[in-house]
Amino acid sequence: MNDAEKILKTEAKPINEWLDRLLPGEDTPPKQLHKAMRYSVFAGGKRLRPALAILAYRWAGGKKEAIYPPACALELIHTYSLIHDDLPSMDNDELRRGKPTSHVVFGEAMAILAGDALHALAFELLAMGGKIGIISDVARAIGTGGLVGGQVFDMEAEGIAPTPEIVERIHLGKTAALLTVSLRVGASMADANADELEAITLYGLKMGLAFQIIDDILDITADESRLGKPIGSDEERNKATYPAVFGVEKSRTMAEELLAGAKSALPEGKDNSAFISMADFIFKRAY
Amino acid sequence: MNDAEKILKTEAKPINEWLDRLLPGEDTPPKQLHKAMRYSVFAGGKRLRPALAILAYRWAGGKKEAIYPPACALELIHTYSLIHDDLPSMDNDELRRGKPTSHVVFGEAMAILAGDALHALAFELLAMGGKIGIISDVARAIGTGGLVGGQVFDMEAEGIAPTPEIVERIHLGKTAALLTVSLRVGASMADANADELEAITLYGLKMGLAFQIIDDILDITADESRLGKPIGSDEERNKATYPAVFGVEKSRTMAEELLAGAKSALPEGKDNSAFISMADFIFKRAY
Repeated sequence: MNDAEKILKTEAKPINEWLDRLLPGEDTPPKQLHKAMRYSVFAGGKRLRPALAILAYRWAGGKKEAIYPPACALELIHTYSLIHDDLPSMDNDELRRGKPTSHVVFGEAMAILAGDALHALAFELLAMGGKIGIISDVARAIGTGGLVGGQVFDMEAEGIAPTPEIVERIHLGKTAALLTVSLRVGASMADANADELEAITLYGLKMGLAFQIIDDILDITADESRLGKPIGSDEERNKATYPAVFGVEKSRTMAEELLAGAKSALPEGKDNSAFISMADFIFKRAY
Repeated sequence: MNDAEKILKTEAKPINEWLDRLLPGEDTPPKQLHKAMRYSVFAGGKRLRPALAILAYRWAGGKKEAIYPPACALELIHTYSLIHDDLPSMDNDELRRGKPTSHVVFGEAMAILAGDALHALAFELLAMGGKIGIISDVARAIGTGGLVGGQVFDMEAEGIAPTPEIVERIHLGKTAALLTVSLRVGASMADANADELEAITLYGLKMGLAFQIIDDILDITADESRLGKPIGSDEERNKATYPAVFGVEKSRTMAEELLAGAKSALPEGKDNSAFISMADFIFKRAY
């Protein structure tokens, strides 16, 4: 394991404990709904988004446990968006991380509602952070100018010849927006100053874009069992991806440049080591 | 028109103007998404929830325009929940207020995403109110313990013999929770004291429950063209409703008693006239 994997593994443990504590129990009615919410949240994610929030929080001087509920909120948002993306009328994916998706297990109606409930619970947890600024910030990042918007651009681009502008817009919305706001939530919770917030935002956007480019590359080159979902599905669906526009090699170079840019966005005189490891780790996934 | 209808009509005008200003324009990409969001928001609702927020705001002494974004947020939440409820995998409704539902016009994927985007935008607007308390309050009211939970209880009750406990739980979640929190948002935005908040909450729960009972009655007795959707659909689907448990006459009496209780929850020495008219109006709909 490299540094970033060790960091993620270490951070995941308390995050999972907090998620377990913050999600309603399966014995509390409506049981089937709570079961569906927990099924997808505990389906084996790396907890990258809450981990980024926590790392940014410490990076900006935060030392309290109060970061956990807002950090967990970001995982709930990520999970809700995956559940809805996987629906038959959307990507129609039956497997995610090697497990049947929510609608396969619980039916379509319950999957939609589990996503909706995670979405609402996320804002309840964000509010526990006590800062109104992070509410607006996250709401903007996951709405029509971010996550949902990226999803729509992605849908609209299926079947048409993708351009560099189109794929960038999709990836910024679908992936970079939530990763970036995760870092911003952490920094804001520690009362980061404007320069710190700007630096971490720039890091997040570049790192997030690179992350999705590598994901696109993996969809073509990876081993199916390692990826936990069928490979080549993007190409089959005519998805607008970086490799589709630039080819695999050029995409790799672009990811490398973005990650170098992400690292150099970090200010001198702070302990940036975790963020540097994270950027290196993302790049290594591409091979 | 009686008093409540006049009040609602008067309040609806600025609410509609604010909604128009606060929703992204149809010319802003992703255009189809913004079009879908606007289609459902402007499909002809009475704006009851934002109106209740504004009335409670004034009732508690509020005088500013700052109430409008949070009040509009409540309409967006209501709209998002209707779009998702109408989906083929949920209630499979093709008509709402006499117009084709979102998924009929824009397709299922876009309808899901329009709902998700309205959900996120609602929290952006709530945050404009600047008060963290209303974020938690609304998030709780629309999550597993409120709106979404009620929806699940409703789904689970289809086809089984409903009990008084089951229908109450469904209606409190599906309808009363959002109506009540609308009042609470208004009162909180005007810094209402604990007694005022308690009174308006009690009013809201009783009024909200009565509202849904009357809605159930109308599904049986109303004129299809006046209702804007097919009548008798609850019965056809074996929905757990008050008339199904208690019969139409007993349900009407219960609604009447609840509305009397709602009115008497209002404290003396304040101008409660708008809330009294509203309760009377809700009851009159039943005939």
